Amino acid sequence: MSQPVRFALIGTGRIGQVHAASIHRSPDAVLTVAADAVVAGAQRTVARFGGRATADALEAVAADDVDAVVIASPTPTHVDLLAAALAAGKAVLCEKPIDLDITRVDAVRERARTASTPVVLGFNRRFDPHFAELRRRVRAGEIGRLEHLAITSRDPQAPPADYVRVSGGIFRDMAIHDFDTARSFVPDVVSVTAVGLRQFDADTAAAGDFDAAVTTLVGAGGESVTITNSRHSAYGYDQRLEAFGDGGMLEVGNVTPTLVRSSTATASSAGEPYRPFFLERYRDAYERELAAFVAAVRGDLAPGVPGFEDGRAALLLADAAETSARQGRTVAVDLG
Amino acid sequence: MSQPVRFALIGTGRIGQVHAASIHRSPDAVLTVAADAVVAGAQRTVARFGGRATADALEAVAADDVDAVVIASPTPTHVDLLAAALAAGKAVLCEKPIDLDITRVDAVRERARTASTPVVLGFNRRFDPHFAELRRRVRAGEIGRLEHLAITSRDPQAPPADYVRVSGGIFRDMAIHDFDTARSFVPDVVSVTAVGLRQFDADTAAAGDFDAAVTTLVGAGGESVTITNSRHSAYGYDQRLEAFGDGGMLEVGNVTPTLVRSSTATASSAGEPYRPFFLERYRDAYERELAAFVAAVRGDLAPGVPGFEDGRAALLLADAAETSARQGRTVAVDLG
Amino acid sequence: MSQPVRFALIGTGRIGQVHAASIHRSPDAVLTVAADAVVAGAQRTVARFGGRATADALEAVAADDVDAVVIASPTPTHVDLLAAALAAGKAVLCEKPIDLDITRVDAVRERARTASTPVVLGFNRRFDPHFAELRRRVRAGEIGRLEHLAITSRDPQAPPADYVRVSGGIFRDMAIHDFDTARSFVPDVVSVTAVGLRQFDADTAAAGDFDAAVTTLVGAGGESVTITNSRHSAYGYDQRLEAFGDGGMLEVGNVTPTLVRSSTATASSAGEPYRPFFLERYRDAYERELAAFVAAVRGDLAPGVPGFEDGRAALLLADAAETSARQGRTVAVDLG
Amino acid sequence: MSQPVRFALIGTGRIGQVHAASIHRSPDAVLTVAADAVVAGAQRTVARFGGRATADALEAVAADDVDAVVIASPTPTHVDLLAAALAAGKAVLCEKPIDLDITRVDAVRERARTASTPVVLGFNRRFDPHFAELRRRVRAGEIGRLEHLAITSRDPQAPPADYVRVSGGIFRDMAIHDFDTARSFVPDVVSVTAVGLRQFDADTAAAGDFDAAVTTLVGAGGESVTITNSRHSAYGYDQRLEAFGDGGMLEVGNVTPTLVRSSTATASSAGEPYRPFFLERYRDAYERELAAFVAAVRGDLAPGVPGFEDGRAALLLADAAETSARQGRTVAVDLG
Repeated sequence: MSQPVRFALIGTGRIGQVHAASIHRSPDAVLTVAADAVVAGAQRTVARFGGRATADALEAVAADDVDAVVIASPTPTHVDLLAAALAAGKAVLCEKPIDLDITRVDAVRERARTASTPVVLGFNRRFDPHFAELRRRVRAGEIGRLEHLAITSRDPQAPPADYVRVSGGIFRDMAIHDFDTARSFVPDVVSVTAVGLRQFDADTAAAGDFDAAVTTLVGAGGESVTITNSRHSAYGYDQRLEAFGDGGMLEVGNVTPTLVRSSTATASSAGEPYRPFFLERYRDAYERELAAFVAAVRGDLAPGVPGFEDGRAALLLADAAETSARQGRTVAVDLG
Repeated sequence: MSQPVRFALIGTGRIGQVHAASIHRSPDAVLTVAADAVVAGAQRTVARFGGRATADALEAVAADDVDAVVIASPTPTHVDLLAAALAAGKAVLCEKPIDLDITRVDAVRERARTASTPVVLGFNRRFDPHFAELRRRVRAGEIGRLEHLAITSRDPQAPPADYVRVSGGIFRDMAIHDFDTARSFVPDVVSVTAVGLRQFDADTAAAGDFDAAVTTLVGAGGESVTITNSRHSAYGYDQRLEAFGDGGMLEVGNVTPTLVRSSTATASSAGEPYRPFFLERYRDAYERELAAFVAAVRGDLAPGVPGFEDGRAALLLADAAETSARQGRTVAVDLG
Repeated sequence: MSQPVRFALIGTGRIGQVHAASIHRSPDAVLTVAADAVVAGAQRTVARFGGRATADALEAVAADDVDAVVIASPTPTHVDLLAAALAAGKAVLCEKPIDLDITRVDAVRERARTASTPVVLGFNRRFDPHFAELRRRVRAGEIGRLEHLAITSRDPQAPPADYVRVSGGIFRDMAIHDFDTARSFVPDVVSVTAVGLRQFDADTAAAGDFDAAVTTLVGAGGESVTITNSRHSAYGYDQRLEAFGDGGMLEVGNVTPTLVRSSTATASSAGEPYRPFFLERYRDAYERELAAFVAAVRGDLAPGVPGFEDGRAALLLADAAETSARQGRTVAVDLG
Repeated sequence: MSQPVRFALIGTGRIGQVHAASIHRSPDAVLTVAADAVVAGAQRTVARFGGRATADALEAVAADDVDAVVIASPTPTHVDLLAAALAAGKAVLCEKPIDLDITRVDAVRERARTASTPVVLGFNRRFDPHFAELRRRVRAGEIGRLEHLAITSRDPQAPPADYVRVSGGIFRDMAIHDFDTARSFVPDVVSVTAVGLRQFDADTAAAGDFDAAVTTLVGAGGESVTITNSRHSAYGYDQRLEAFGDGGMLEVGNVTPTLVRSSTATASSAGEPYRPFFLERYRDAYERELAAFVAAVRGDLAPGVPGFEDGRAALLLADAAETSARQGRTVAVDLG
């Protein structure tokens, strides 16, 4: 068997912990160094999962005993870390988004394009076993020609006002996942029509942002995609997918912790509440994402694993949706 | 079009009302006379659904303007009314059971066998569209050779103590429906193994009866049937069916009034409470039962419509189950 | 009991037959006269359900022994028949749409507004027991404040090219039902954003029409409604509803003939194919529609029963959607 | 953090591999030695998951660097290895059954009872997250007093004839899992009524065994449990549970790999085929079983983790079921 891939983990917050655990559970990966500006976080991580701790992300990225870097630090640091890692010849798994500003993304685009090591974008939904299986069956032709995709994506609750202000807005911060999901079915999107809504959150409205949105994409082949977003959902994290082809329909509903169902005098066949948020809903996806990245590092990049260009395209769609919602008109896009 | 079949309805209680409404809704049936010892009940019925009222059941049965008789009066009257109707050359739809005493059933058996008019037994489950469709698909060979049938049958709540004492016991009163359902799949039952239970109802125990039971039937071809009965069910009337063959499985779950499902912070995809009891659960079945009877009167007796012999066989199985439960042993039966 | 309401039925085609059967099954209604330009159709109808036949619709509408008129004739005849019926003091149940041209609708608006008898529009979905129960629970506050409504509405297959050309287009012909459903939850719609699609049907494209569409409505209270339409659906008639409030979610899925589910080596828990089209899917709805109309004739107009103004508002929304789809912009509407 | 528990794994066949992988994935466990009479199997295991290989099970059991032993070797070796491990002061996770012969089980009973280290029986269903959650909710009183438990348990296909002959019969080999599940809800079983069936497998019949069975247990509190077994199931591994209390019902259906559902012209909402067999169906359960065992080794034995006495009780019930099926009578049992 090959030697395990040696990892530097940059950022040991909530999502960094998820990646550290995935590295530990994989027989093909090992954590060499964890970096965090708050070094105590890095220290707690290596105490549980192995490796050394540092406050210096660039040192970790460049270390000789590191083959691959997971960028799980705050968004504004992504572009520089990505550039540094590629310059050091390291493979990169970068959390989304690359950046909120397309000009900053484009500034590293050429470097990513010509890098000798893979860049994988952390669009977790691509690796969800339910969605991936639906996509596999669509691609296998089971429902014929794909005509429509319906994406439902509601977060459990609006983020704090502080976060909303720096989030980049609902399209760049939240819907960007769904734009990528859309593109995993319909890569070549040609137009965006979005309706922005202010339904419940005063902080979001005060920030000039929307707390809900409905976006319709049209693909070059005439396919349509609807994305329904809300910043809250009383019944848990709502992540559903439905694909409609000229031969049938495939769908994935929400996930419950177990299959227990209850029937009483007031309700029948009631399931458990849905998974509360992404850490629980996409637990398996994160483990599969790490595995796909490890395979890519070893030269086996599977089709459908999202890369730099996918991260850029999702941001372009978010920008177009923002424009459409604010101007009340359909916006043409060119993702080429 | 043919003239509507002219009906005498004997008994205008709860189930009599159901039959009166079915007769009204059918373009092929008309209510000529309703009889009830409590003549006010008969009068109320004809005020709504047409025809004349009488307190004299035998007069109604014998009337010249009557083609067919629905016997929906108390069980002890069934045998005599059945005999009278057949003697008068009338077709009969008789509510179950024919009688609680097999000797009284056998006393009219020959008359039923040689009658020129059809006798249909009111085993409503035979006419349920869900169960009937499952049976049709089993017979069409969709799951290969039938090996096992699981019948779940729980009433919403135990009947009053007064009723329990004259009911004939859980097997003859309640499970008899399920014995007939079993025979609609596996007509030739050769053994009965029953376990009687006293789980919750003191009145039932005081009457020497069981309030729950588990019965296993074995067919001549080695098929097994399990029947799970309880006299109460906190979540509504529980009527389910599952057929297991060497090629697959078919099942019918419980019915809700509508398909509305609810998701909240405490439960997901919760359906409405199940139908409360048989009048609601088997509403469509009663209408189809009447239609099948009308067809039989017109000479078109569909396969699977239960007759006198089916009523007798179900009682024999109930008697055997009672013996098995009381003696703790498997009882061989001969339904021939 | 009151005397049954006496009906004239105008139009004895497919949908006319449905109404004739509903009238027959109701203990509170009777068919007095059926009119059809093709008198043989009227004759066949009365042979089955009673009454007399005529080729003269206006004579039927004006007849003394008629209390109420069902207009089920071709769309271009609706406005004149409606006016004639109201002039004769008859109650009217009019199939949708009132007309495809808003100016013709407006020409009879005042007469409808001032009529002494009720006008009920045949938006069958309003009477569907599943959708009605969902709406009842939304109105009862079960999911808190309504924020979003998702309507899925796909016909089984595109109509013939001849029909497409005179249909008025996907919005006025097909989506009009969904606009009314939207308004039964969010009556005061203020803007319409629609995307029209040409995905599969060459005849529709040749007629300059769309074969699929995605429409987003926004209500005065900030509510959003998405309507997803397609002129074909490989898996049967697709009619679903989902209501999202700040306290939870309610949904209604598609209807199968029975609850039989099948599990085999290749699929688990597979239901029967969905109902093929509206006659099967909305069978109960038509019977309830007739009952609601009978109640209205007797002076008991239930809240939520759609009237003339609802028919007009749905057409206004369809017109706005057409404009939006063709011009690629959000269109403001005023339904007042 | 504490040091990882050091494991000896005895037996590296199919189920041994599952345990080796669980040990690897746990941050609290490490594989020290793997033993197999076929030493190449042990060698392959340690190459993947670490540790040393040996052909000598007793040496592995007694090794100083071993804290805990997993017994996954053939059934006839269990009793001796269990005794040796306990004698060496090691904790034991023993695959079911302890032995097929109750006298051999009873011969080590006292040693197990007085051991200073825990003995955990590998009844995987106890650790299944679905079943465990259902049990937790029953114990929490959610459905009131438990009255009935229905266990459905069908293997995908009959084992080879060679295996059938040494299996101990359907009750001791297969249903023993279900007897333990029954006891995890109703520990004190007082009677067993079983019906043995020969429905499809000639080899099984030739061996004098049954290929299907229906067993009814009664608990000291009057609770009933039905177990429906078959040696084959065309639609995959069928493992379901339903608990009926005086306050409601809880159920767990079968598991599919993902939640994708398909609707076509011939079926609606069809799920994927169920998990094929126990390795896939109980994957999570095995990982949780290992975790529960590690916790027990560290002194934290959770309630409901099955031990030696549970293994013995399940065998007593299997023996009673065998007697009942062969003699056609209810058999009283005393598990004390």
